[in-house]
Amino acid sequence: MKARVTVTLKNGVLDPQGKAIEGSLGSLGFEGVEGIRQGKVFDLELADRSEAQAKADIEAMCEQLLANTVIENYSIELL
Amino acid sequence: MKARVTVTLKNGVLDPQGKAIEGSLGSLGFEGVEGIRQGKVFDLELADRSEAQAKADIEAMCEQLLANTVIENYSIELL
Repeated sequence: MKARVTVTLKNGVLDPQGKAIEGSLGSLGFEGVEGIRQGKVFDLELADRSEAQAKADIEAMCEQLLANTVIENYSIELL
Repeated sequence: MKARVTVTLKNGVLDPQGKAIEGSLGSLGFEGVEGIRQGKVFDLELADRSEAQAKADIEAMCEQLLANTVIENYSIELL
């Protein structure tokens, strides 16, 4: 089964990379870009298991490795 | 208006970072992880414009800066 985990910075956490991208878009002539925040996405391929089990497993992976929960939020989507 | 751009590696492009994460999950005791690919996500905040205009603008941003279209795919989602 497939799943997608999206990890984004929490509100209030500075995102210098996002700011740099915003600046670059401005230099390229794109107008009206009011903010950009960059995050990460993980596409997982898991051996078959129940949906509930998959969610629990992926949540544990996020807590332990995929996300830094001090500064990042994560969301899990089973595909 | 808000939009989310998801950039992922094309099939067949090696993803050493994903492989490393897969190995780490194995070391942590997670079983049945058959593959992980890492990508990027950009959360954009744009000044108001029509949906069609927003899509066109974001597509141009992807082609010029946000994605390397030689090795990456991108998808655009208006929120």
